Amino acid sequence: KVKEDRLMRDLHETCEWGKGERWGSAPTETGMSRLSLSDADKKARDWFAQTTESLGCVVTTDFMGNQFAIRPGTKDGPPTVAGSHLDTQPTGGRYDGILGVTAGIEMLRTLHDNDITTSFPVGVVNWTNEEGARFPISMVSSGVWAGCIPLSHAHDLKEVGTGTATMKSELQRIGYLGEVDCNHETVPLAAHFELHIEQGPILEAEERKIGIVQGVQAYKWFTVKVRGADCHTGTTSFSHRADAMLAAAKMIVYSHRAAAKRGALASTGILQLKPGSTNTVPGSVDFSLDIRSPDDHIVEEVEKDCRVAFAALAAGDNIDGLNDHFTPSSKSCEVSWILDTHSPATKFHPDCISCVESAASSLFGNDTEALTKPMTSGAGHDSVYTSKRVPTTMIFVPSRDGVSHNPVEYTRPEDCAMGAQVLMQAVLRYDIR
Amino acid sequence: KVKEDRLMRDLHETCEWGKGERWGSAPTETGMSRLSLSDADKKARDWFAQTTESLGCVVTTDFMGNQFAIRPGTKDGPPTVAGSHLDTQPTGGRYDGILGVTAGIEMLRTLHDNDITTSFPVGVVNWTNEEGARFPISMVSSGVWAGCIPLSHAHDLKEVGTGTATMKSELQRIGYLGEVDCNHETVPLAAHFELHIEQGPILEAEERKIGIVQGVQAYKWFTVKVRGADCHTGTTSFSHRADAMLAAAKMIVYSHRAAAKRGALASTGILQLKPGSTNTVPGSVDFSLDIRSPDDHIVEEVEKDCRVAFAALAAGDNIDGLNDHFTPSSKSCEVSWILDTHSPATKFHPDCISCVESAASSLFGNDTEALTKPMTSGAGHDSVYTSKRVPTTMIFVPSRDGVSHNPVEYTRPEDCAMGAQVLMQAVLRYDIR
Ligand SMILES: NC(=O)NCCC(=O)O
Ligand SMILES: NC(=O)NCCC(=O)O
Repeated sequence: KVKEDRLMRDLHETCEWGKGERWGSAPTETGMSRLSLSDADKKARDWFAQTTESLGCVVTTDFMGNQFAIRPGTKDGPPTVAGSHLDTQPTGGRYDGILGVTAGIEMLRTLHDNDITTSFPVGVVNWTNEEGARFPISMVSSGVWAGCIPLSHAHDLKEVGTGTATMKSELQRIGYLGEVDCNHETVPLAAHFELHIEQGPILEAEERKIGIVQGVQAYKWFTVKVRGADCHTGTTSFSHRADAMLAAAKMIVYSHRAAAKRGALASTGILQLKPGSTNTVPGSVDFSLDIRSPDDHIVEEVEKDCRVAFAALAAGDNIDGLNDHFTPSSKSCEVSWILDTHSPATKFHPDCISCVESAASSLFGNDTEALTKPMTSGAGHDSVYTSKRVPTTMIFVPSRDGVSHNPVEYTRPEDCAMGAQVLMQAVLRYDIR
Repeated sequence: KVKEDRLMRDLHETCEWGKGERWGSAPTETGMSRLSLSDADKKARDWFAQTTESLGCVVTTDFMGNQFAIRPGTKDGPPTVAGSHLDTQPTGGRYDGILGVTAGIEMLRTLHDNDITTSFPVGVVNWTNEEGARFPISMVSSGVWAGCIPLSHAHDLKEVGTGTATMKSELQRIGYLGEVDCNHETVPLAAHFELHIEQGPILEAEERKIGIVQGVQAYKWFTVKVRGADCHTGTTSFSHRADAMLAAAKMIVYSHRAAAKRGALASTGILQLKPGSTNTVPGSVDFSLDIRSPDDHIVEEVEKDCRVAFAALAAGDNIDGLNDHFTPSSKSCEVSWILDTHSPATKFHPDCISCVESAASSLFGNDTEALTKPMTSGAGHDSVYTSKRVPTTMIFVPSRDGVSHNPVEYTRPEDCAMGAQVLMQAVLRYDIR
């Protein structure tokens, strides 16, 4: 059995590196701000390597900085792993990703204490830049491992904002560029299990303990670039403007409607405007657009709808009442799209799902149906990419108020421990395949 | 008579400091990026002091870094000055402000060459941070001089964006904190004339040479702060969001409509969003709102309309079709307003206006009516504040395509020289009052 105290101690102690905004008075009541490949992330990585080595693992770091801590089994062969990530959002919480990695380490501690040798190797993986918050492709390093994203493309990714660092320069800077190719053939796995907080409100609302994740919804991330012309806010009539900010505002409003109509999601989390002066109408706005739906076709539909509407809005056409017929402009903006991330809808592997189901049954007995639920994940996870190469699934535990990507993100210690227990048992069940 | 070549040489040579984006192949075909109190601005200030001293002026710098270059007359008394500014927008042009100062210096050169002594002192003023681009109050230093803005408030102004510099710290850093109080009593003026590019399309369209400026339209600048809650873009349904970016987008669209309906202007030139991650719905957006009209009451009306509508939009009410009835949210945003600048409508002084009229008549003769035009300025200028203390007016020259606050801003050399000629003659006419 995993130990709740020890798990929570690992989790909160490592959260000293990159501690974020305080939301309560207790020492652990802060969020996290541990962007990938930052100095704080380096400290968390050092701890991961030292701790897993002390538990009898061999740690391999690949060219994307992914850390594979592998504990030998009776027989040789690819390991069954528990994987997740130690990076966070700029204003994230203590559970997203971190719980999955520390629960994996708790599994190693439990095996170690009880002197258990598995049939095949088992281990824990810390994937780099899962969040996509600092380098704008989520799950980029499991994506390279799976052969879905070229290594050079990932290495060249520039950090969001005005900085000039790339993934490669930051991997080098913190000493985590690694010694082996990032590839599912160089570092093969047998199966990938990921414990994660739900990040949504369902388990809590239905008073369930464990979500048995069947798959992940589809999403696409774009950078939309709107180009008009800088001009004076006081001397330029509306009809002489090509106002990139106004056009972008209309597009953001439109994208929300286009998604809402179809039960999908659309969100803008980044917006950069130039030149950035109160009395200059901005000639340049770039914004992020994140479109999601469990159905790949609906993501495509929302995208298509927005592409047509954005072009029309930029040209000054009165789409959906968003351009005022009484201020026609003689000038128009240009709009272009860059696809940053595409993560199609994912289905997880029945063998892994049944390992999680039987782990849960063994714990909950007759209450299994009441306390568990088959779910689809709204967020992407490294399991999306591992599932393309090896049997994979995920385990969800409840999120208070469904809140995530926010400092107040919270999951109760007993729920964390329950998730860790199911994770360990699922890994061990898969190991005796 | 002023010398066109010499004027344009002064203008373009000083534009080497803070040269901006290139738009043509000729050496002078670039914009300007000389933010107030930057290193480039320091060089332009040093040049201003050296040049005017070499032309027989005494230069006084006040606590706001305003530079007063005064040339003695036969009698003592407050000087009649030509004033404007040497700072620019981040992506500005070579004429806005710079023409007014260099034309003032051309006046000094002409008096010097012709050994003319005026009745009373005359001079040139370089006002600090007219643009309000770096420190977000436009004409702040003439505002302090006029007693309309407290010195300490101006000194404490923080630069726009993420920097921590204040006006005072930057004045100190570049050595321009000055030696006398910034005050119309400490440094009195007799009258203030300002030559400026029109920054609008009218003179060019009507093939006129000189705008005789009667006054300046009213404007108010606000920072609007929208606060919601950070959450996950993939796991948070629209009904659980308090999306500050979406709310801000609706407000920007609304403000444009509210202004357009009343023939006013509303513009957003700055928008800062936090935390700034593709997959986090932003909980915090601050944006600038610049509202203008020749009529003070209409500025008030647009403001009031927006205050009511923004509050309703933040609360999720369906104002003007901007909130979708089919995605009511259980959460709402908060909105608050900060007033950054208020510049009421300004009327210039009849004595100064008639000096400009007679200067123009003496040059254009029978064509005066065809080649000049009484105008209202859409942009604020230091003359707005000087007009509160001393007789003031402005002279406009044509702007190509009406474009300003843009690197391609352009006024023909002959038009610049014509403006400088009218400026000098108006100052000399006022001097023999
Ligand atoms: N779990 C999580 O927040 N992953 C980041 C990728 C996404 O935005 O869904
Ligand atoms: N002339 C000029 O651009 N002044 C800045 C103040 C304003 O925005 O009107």
